[in-house]
Amino acid sequence: MQPIIECVPNFSEGRDASKIDAIETAIASADGAVILHRSSDPDHNRSVITFAGSPESVLEGAVRGTAAAAKLIDLRIHKGVHPRLGALDVLPFVPVRGATLEDCVALAHRAGEKIWRELSIPVYFYEAAAWQPMRQRLENVRRGEFEEIREAALIDESRQPDIGGPGLHSTAGAVIVGARRFLIAFNINLRTSDLQVAKDIARAIRTSSGGLPAVKALGLPLMSRNLVQVSMNLTDFEQTGLYAVYNEIARRAATRGVEIAGSELIGLMPRSAIEQAAAAFLKLENFDTQRIVENRIESLAEGEQ
Amino acid sequence: MQPIIECVPNFSEGRDASKIDAIETAIASADGAVILHRSSDPDHNRSVITFAGSPESVLEGAVRGTAAAAKLIDLRIHKGVHPRLGALDVLPFVPVRGATLEDCVALAHRAGEKIWRELSIPVYFYEAAAWQPMRQRLENVRRGEFEEIREAALIDESRQPDIGGPGLHSTAGAVIVGARRFLIAFNINLRTSDLQVAKDIARAIRTSSGGLPAVKALGLPLMSRNLVQVSMNLTDFEQTGLYAVYNEIARRAATRGVEIAGSELIGLMPRSAIEQAAAAFLKLENFDTQRIVENRIESLAEGEQ
Repeated sequence: MQPIIECVPNFSEGRDASKIDAIETAIASADGAVILHRSSDPDHNRSVITFAGSPESVLEGAVRGTAAAAKLIDLRIHKGVHPRLGALDVLPFVPVRGATLEDCVALAHRAGEKIWRELSIPVYFYEAAAWQPMRQRLENVRRGEFEEIREAALIDESRQPDIGGPGLHSTAGAVIVGARRFLIAFNINLRTSDLQVAKDIARAIRTSSGGLPAVKALGLPLMSRNLVQVSMNLTDFEQTGLYAVYNEIARRAATRGVEIAGSELIGLMPRSAIEQAAAAFLKLENFDTQRIVENRIESLAEGEQ
Repeated sequence: MQPIIECVPNFSEGRDASKIDAIETAIASADGAVILHRSSDPDHNRSVITFAGSPESVLEGAVRGTAAAAKLIDLRIHKGVHPRLGALDVLPFVPVRGATLEDCVALAHRAGEKIWRELSIPVYFYEAAAWQPMRQRLENVRRGEFEEIREAALIDESRQPDIGGPGLHSTAGAVIVGARRFLIAFNINLRTSDLQVAKDIARAIRTSSGGLPAVKALGLPLMSRNLVQVSMNLTDFEQTGLYAVYNEIARRAATRGVEIAGSELIGLMPRSAIEQAAAAFLKLENFDTQRIVENRIESLAEGEQ
């Protein structure tokens, strides 16, 4: 199957709809780039556009979006409560199917080189695409924001961009380009009003307190429904997927006499996540994705028999 | 999303690979028709080719396959243990996605008209495409096979084809064209060697003995694994899907202290069947197919936002 990559540029304009439209239009002008979602926050003065397509489509869309943001946004006069370093601030590439995290790292590096070469905007690499271990964490890259970093980059080698520089672009700052896995936001509602049950289960399953790998979890009240919720981010669903968290939460809730009332997905998930979950629940012994008619047709039509 | 139809022609040649190849090649020569599977039985002297594509691709592939079968097969000299009326004997159209059973009925009728008009082979309609209630059952149409029906059709109005005739084609007989739902063949293995458990559960869940709708089920031994199996055909998975039978079998097995050891899929299933199952197991409150990245990209790329 043709690989599909998702790209989630965060840019520093959340108020002027005509500018946000123009950036979206620039991204969508790349052949094969499909806009999936857009959200803007006026207080953050920041927007997020989610788009997807083939690796080449997404690379081209990312560079066009960066060019449009640099043309329309002047960080010297930009104000907002969310920290930022660039007009196009953060640019992660995410594998959806037929591509690995490593493929997205390579794509991030190609995008970074193209952005510097064509637009003269310097680039930092973060998360899986980081060239410097300290820069794996976005907050380390962005500490001090545009106003401090444009000074620091000129005098402190450790703050210089990975590509371009040493100084920042005078109005567009720098782009922080990276690669990460697909994140699934998934919540499970428990049939109790006892918030402590959700908090205890969230603590038991989250990675940071020794639970399941690649899970972030919080216990929250759902006041209007008189339920509580375990709200989760699955940061690597191939390691810990929907089935694993559902099962673990059902088991832990049952020991307290509590049932799962339902679950909800926030945003989107890749097809392989739902196929994996169904196969696990059904204990399917011989499942592979080619057992699905449409997948098989697609593979055969592409000559991957 | 583009509609996808599956077509499963059964034709009266199961021994001569060069003839079977030629019929497959004729089907695949229709633009957009993709061959999914082929099986031949020399005792039956019969083959089944499963192919799929858009409604127009499948219609064209079906007519080309019928033409090739009529050219290569002479029923006057055909022998095999499986009953048959035509060179291309049975031609069912099956909805996979974006199409209803009614769409497939209409497609079957168009195929039948085209086969008579272009190839001068008469046509009977069966199952959901039947024009005469008696002909809903394939065995009623095929009773007496080619040898008897070619005589009967000339003298008995009730045996005449629905289109064309009154007599049959001298060498190719007639094509029995129909429409049916996608059939999922799904087996659940139980961790016991007691065959009676599988037989009792099969009887409890099958439609014919008052169980779940659209389920055929048998209890079978799995000697080599020392397990027993409930072997099922789900004839309308939108009515009774994988989740429903899994759940019901798990519940009934549990009352006898027996666990589900695993399950297996025979052949293929449509994507919506696995999405439906995952959503049900997860108790997803807000699921729709557009929550899957790839489905959303496909819809947006086709302008169906």
